[in-house]
Amino acid sequence: MQKRAAQTRNRILQSAMVCFSRYGYASCGVADICNEAGVSKGAFYHHFSSKQEVFVELIHHWLATVDAKLQLARSDHLDVPVALLQMSGLVDQVIQQASDSLPAFLEIWLQASREPEVRDTLVTPYGRFQSFFADVIRSGIERGSFEEMDASLSASALLSLAVGLLLQSLLAPEKHDWAQVSREGFRIFIRGMSRSVSNDPGTEPAIDAESTGNR
Amino acid sequence: MQKRAAQTRNRILQSAMVCFSRYGYASCGVADICNEAGVSKGAFYHHFSSKQEVFVELIHHWLATVDAKLQLARSDHLDVPVALLQMSGLVDQVIQQASDSLPAFLEIWLQASREPEVRDTLVTPYGRFQSFFADVIRSGIERGSFEEMDASLSASALLSLAVGLLLQSLLAPEKHDWAQVSREGFRIFIRGMSRSVSNDPGTEPAIDAESTGNR
Repeated sequence: MQKRAAQTRNRILQSAMVCFSRYGYASCGVADICNEAGVSKGAFYHHFSSKQEVFVELIHHWLATVDAKLQLARSDHLDVPVALLQMSGLVDQVIQQASDSLPAFLEIWLQASREPEVRDTLVTPYGRFQSFFADVIRSGIERGSFEEMDASLSASALLSLAVGLLLQSLLAPEKHDWAQVSREGFRIFIRGMSRSVSNDPGTEPAIDAESTGNR
Repeated sequence: MQKRAAQTRNRILQSAMVCFSRYGYASCGVADICNEAGVSKGAFYHHFSSKQEVFVELIHHWLATVDAKLQLARSDHLDVPVALLQMSGLVDQVIQQASDSLPAFLEIWLQASREPEVRDTLVTPYGRFQSFFADVIRSGIERGSFEEMDASLSASALLSLAVGLLLQSLLAPEKHDWAQVSREGFRIFIRGMSRSVSNDPGTEPAIDAESTGNR
């Protein structure tokens, strides 16, 4: 693709995100996106066949970023509980960076529950995240950090926690320090999966505050 | 209110729920609601001043039901961890009973992130749920079931887990047995808050499967 064409494409994507967040997916038409991006309808349809295609592309972008960050957090720490706790920071990062676009991500869910095509694009990567977490938890079990359990079920529950944190921060951004809630939620969840947990500080496993260097 | 007027009012509420779920809050007008309910616009405006008022009323109904069930689960069990685990069943109940209306509840969040008026109606009861869980967790700490921790933070995280479970079940209803994921998620979370947790079955606290009679 020519550099200029790529720039136009990106501008359309960014403008679509702005429009979806501001007016909602349903209320925002191709004309609004073109207006915001300062491009003609012809240019729009040169790059995308529909509003939905733009939407699906935005989802892919976003998921790819989260994916890359998760892989990074995993490779940075050999210790599974520490790596998982590190990932709670990602929830906060997403909240911080995407506070303007969070309503649009909520739209994704909503559209996904109505349109099978959108749902499919979302269910596949969701499955990938789910497998990723199940895999991390499984290796924690194998290394003796976590108790024996159904790694797939725990992974789904952990994903629910992350999704719920995003959603709640959207509703009441000023209510809490969501970074703190995320960290505490992940800490409790990780502790709950740990093989043996004692309230004696001397035997606390490596998921306490100090080992992650912040709190 | 006359019995007949009350019936009309209820029919409008139920029809609005159907419309919001089917078409989305933004795309669904007062005319659609009237059509679905088989009432005139005059009848509609006799009961409600706007679409938003209907929406807010639906939220209140729903929250009141959840509230009552939470109080019941709490009073049924003196043991805090068992009572909390029982509440995970509520998440599943909401999923089962409200599967048709879940998209509408997602709309609530979305509208709340855009319209301050809707947000206020949601933030107040959210605060009530948050206080309720913080209170339950606090009493768990006092009775020695849970370790010392910030009950308010943990309550917010637990609420996030519940909200995330609802949202994920909406996206992929057939993907998992969400009742099982809810129970496992709550079990892990409760275990993570417990004062001392061992992998020796003999000393497992009262949050294992048998004490709740199902799994």
